[in-house]
Amino acid sequence: MNRRMVFYTVGRIALATALLLLLPALVSLIYREPCGWSFLVAAGLSLAVAAALTFLSRPKSQVIYAREGFAIVALGWLLTSLLGCLPFILSGEVPSFFDAFFETVSGLTTTGASILTNVEALSHGLLFWRSFTHWIGGMGVLIFIMAIIPNIADRSIHIVRAEMPGPVVGKLVPRVKDTAKILYIIYIAMTLLEIAFLLFGGMPLFESVVHAFGTAGTGGFGVKADSIAGYSPYLQWVITVFMLLFGVNFNLYYLILIRRTRTALRSGELWCYLGIVALSTGVIVCNILPQFGSAEDALRHSAFQVASILTTTGYATTDFNLWPDLSRAILFVLMFIGGCAGSTAGGLKQSRAIMLVKTVGREFKRMLHPRSVSSVRFEGKPVDEATLGSVSTYFAVYMICLFAVFLLISPEPFGFETNLSAAVACFNNVGPGFGLVGPVGSYSAYSGFSKLVLSLAMLLGRLEIFPLILALSPGSWIKK
Amino acid sequence: MNRRMVFYTVGRIALATALLLLLPALVSLIYREPCGWSFLVAAGLSLAVAAALTFLSRPKSQVIYAREGFAIVALGWLLTSLLGCLPFILSGEVPSFFDAFFETVSGLTTTGASILTNVEALSHGLLFWRSFTHWIGGMGVLIFIMAIIPNIADRSIHIVRAEMPGPVVGKLVPRVKDTAKILYIIYIAMTLLEIAFLLFGGMPLFESVVHAFGTAGTGGFGVKADSIAGYSPYLQWVITVFMLLFGVNFNLYYLILIRRTRTALRSGELWCYLGIVALSTGVIVCNILPQFGSAEDALRHSAFQVASILTTTGYATTDFNLWPDLSRAILFVLMFIGGCAGSTAGGLKQSRAIMLVKTVGREFKRMLHPRSVSSVRFEGKPVDEATLGSVSTYFAVYMICLFAVFLLISPEPFGFETNLSAAVACFNNVGPGFGLVGPVGSYSAYSGFSKLVLSLAMLLGRLEIFPLILALSPGSWIKK
Repeated sequence: MNRRMVFYTVGRIALATALLLLLPALVSLIYREPCGWSFLVAAGLSLAVAAALTFLSRPKSQVIYAREGFAIVALGWLLTSLLGCLPFILSGEVPSFFDAFFETVSGLTTTGASILTNVEALSHGLLFWRSFTHWIGGMGVLIFIMAIIPNIADRSIHIVRAEMPGPVVGKLVPRVKDTAKILYIIYIAMTLLEIAFLLFGGMPLFESVVHAFGTAGTGGFGVKADSIAGYSPYLQWVITVFMLLFGVNFNLYYLILIRRTRTALRSGELWCYLGIVALSTGVIVCNILPQFGSAEDALRHSAFQVASILTTTGYATTDFNLWPDLSRAILFVLMFIGGCAGSTAGGLKQSRAIMLVKTVGREFKRMLHPRSVSSVRFEGKPVDEATLGSVSTYFAVYMICLFAVFLLISPEPFGFETNLSAAVACFNNVGPGFGLVGPVGSYSAYSGFSKLVLSLAMLLGRLEIFPLILALSPGSWIKK
Repeated sequence: MNRRMVFYTVGRIALATALLLLLPALVSLIYREPCGWSFLVAAGLSLAVAAALTFLSRPKSQVIYAREGFAIVALGWLLTSLLGCLPFILSGEVPSFFDAFFETVSGLTTTGASILTNVEALSHGLLFWRSFTHWIGGMGVLIFIMAIIPNIADRSIHIVRAEMPGPVVGKLVPRVKDTAKILYIIYIAMTLLEIAFLLFGGMPLFESVVHAFGTAGTGGFGVKADSIAGYSPYLQWVITVFMLLFGVNFNLYYLILIRRTRTALRSGELWCYLGIVALSTGVIVCNILPQFGSAEDALRHSAFQVASILTTTGYATTDFNLWPDLSRAILFVLMFIGGCAGSTAGGLKQSRAIMLVKTVGREFKRMLHPRSVSSVRFEGKPVDEATLGSVSTYFAVYMICLFAVFLLISPEPFGFETNLSAAVACFNNVGPGFGLVGPVGSYSAYSGFSKLVLSLAMLLGRLEIFPLILALSPGSWIKK
């Protein structure tokens, strides 16, 4: 393990965090809120940590491999979460460490689960910071660093692999740094486009920015107690469309940018994703129609909630906890599937789900014709056996972690439905679940221990399990 | 597909069913109950079906391959379920077809889920038949046929493979027929032993036989509304021990019989199984101690319920639905794991769970050392990659089927907890779940459609998914 390089890069992350903390400080200044100081103090502390890490561990060699990539990503995310929760504590608005850490991790991992019982009481600075963490965490804080910091080694593909969601991570262009830049340019452009659409619909600037951050990162933090329910149908539709757009693999946008739209539209993952949205929305519309006056209402709420849960955003236009069991069951299953690989969405990812189903299909064939040889094809190409094996194994470790999180929070007396859906919603980075943690509820009632477990579950889900566990296991540090 | 041989063998199954139906007829005769006629009529009908299938499809060749094995097992189980539910309907005691089919499938698959709201009102003949189906289904009706019918082709390993639970099915001795005989001798001896222990504790003969059948098949049908709660602590401990014994791989008993006890005790699966029992019981004892007066009570109820759920039997000495959330969460997770492969228990099976965890462990190693080559070892031997791949794929198809069953029964208005646990409990052949379908509840409130879905889920679970789906897919019948 090239420890010096790991700590050096983690130092860069602290530096980036310090810079990012200046933006909410500016927001506090504009609104003349006292919490501005807490951002500056947090930024100062981050700077100190950055300086210490950078100067104490100047690397002899810039070479990094997979294990360094995992360690950088895991430690970087943990450090950013710890530094990022300081403003909540220092400002006194969220005095408990467990609460502040939970809220920050929930922001960075784009989960959107909240311990706040009254979000509207929060200052503008902290509301902005909360949603800004969604935006940073959505595309990845390390990919951000690679996009902006010069002379980064091209070995950094190992960092991208560890941070980007999905079973296969490719480079759009030969240099990793350029790939990171392109991804961030698309991300920024789409966020600005959403802000414009929201402003056009009459949403105030601050709220437009915050909600665009929450949508772009597929996070789900808002500024209102009733999430998106109070906004006009036009605004709800805009957010529905943008949630879906941010759940699409960003490679497709790059293909469209370089005028290979046809190739982009041939993506099997895209059509599977849209198919699931259409089918789920259709069934739920029929199921909830009696509860809502008009078909338009039923369609809008159904499409919004399906988009919100499938992309693991977590915004709500209505309390879907009160929907009939069938609709809730559909939403529950959607939480597992998640958005496309290479998007900001969480969950298992569409591409993994597709490969799993295709592997199962091949197993059926093999059962009938034991000597037949057939390969699984995805996006027109055969998938190698190693990737298929990793996808199946990932699914196994994913379910094992989910059961472990569920068991660890089960001492809480909130019932089977609340505890199970809390574990599923946090681990898949969705945010709201059912019961007490439904869209109008919060995670405030959980104990400090459970909040810590759920925070780790969010990190495990966002970083796709392996980096965090490997970085925390002594084996990867001791052995040469 | 050798269709003639498939139908011919299915005819044999109908013949066996006719013979098996004579036993409850005898019980009815002893108790002078009018329902005896319904068994004789059902036996007559089974005989007619057997004659028709046997004479109409005399096979030209006895050769069977995997696909014939799947078809025989799937069609055989469906036919036995249809013939076996006739006495319930003909006697008028369970007049609805959906109810009678559900109850029979639940019996044969050793699930033990019931639609009866008052089990004590049932006649002795039907109570005996219900539990006898557990005993037949536990070891496998086809393995039974192979053990008793002469001149069966030794190709029948394909039938054993399709009917026996677990990822790897081996032969104890070179000839399949002899393996089937040995398994049934052990099975009968252990059942008789349990009857003796129960009689010794003062349980009446009829109840001893019925409960021994329910334990041996890890089924869970009893004769009392409160399951095992009304019996003495001694009897509860006897059933606990025998449930655990029937959840052990029967190969180990064969090893002990041929004086290779040391080899048997080296089984990793056995120790993992016992470890899970000890750990779960320990945690639950601490969790439920405040609810029960004495430590002995807490230990007995805890050990009983853990054994009952892990072996997927489903008996209960107390309403575990009223236990704290942590205990219920542990039982919920145990439902998925199930007993050992090669036992009568359902669920995913210990050996699959172990291989999944080991495959995950290897994936972690591979992440750190991408070029390392290491094999997964199980019971002291390296497992070939094909088996590991099938285990992971089985887990994926298992979860997909579970989600599908859950979605299909979700239109029922019984809430998330009841519906999800009903799907899990039926699919894993456990029987009781939580909420309405808890140990003191029943499945009677479900609609005919949902009962059919849950019946198929039980068959899917018992036959480990592939045979049933392959036999019902046109592809395996049309292609040559």
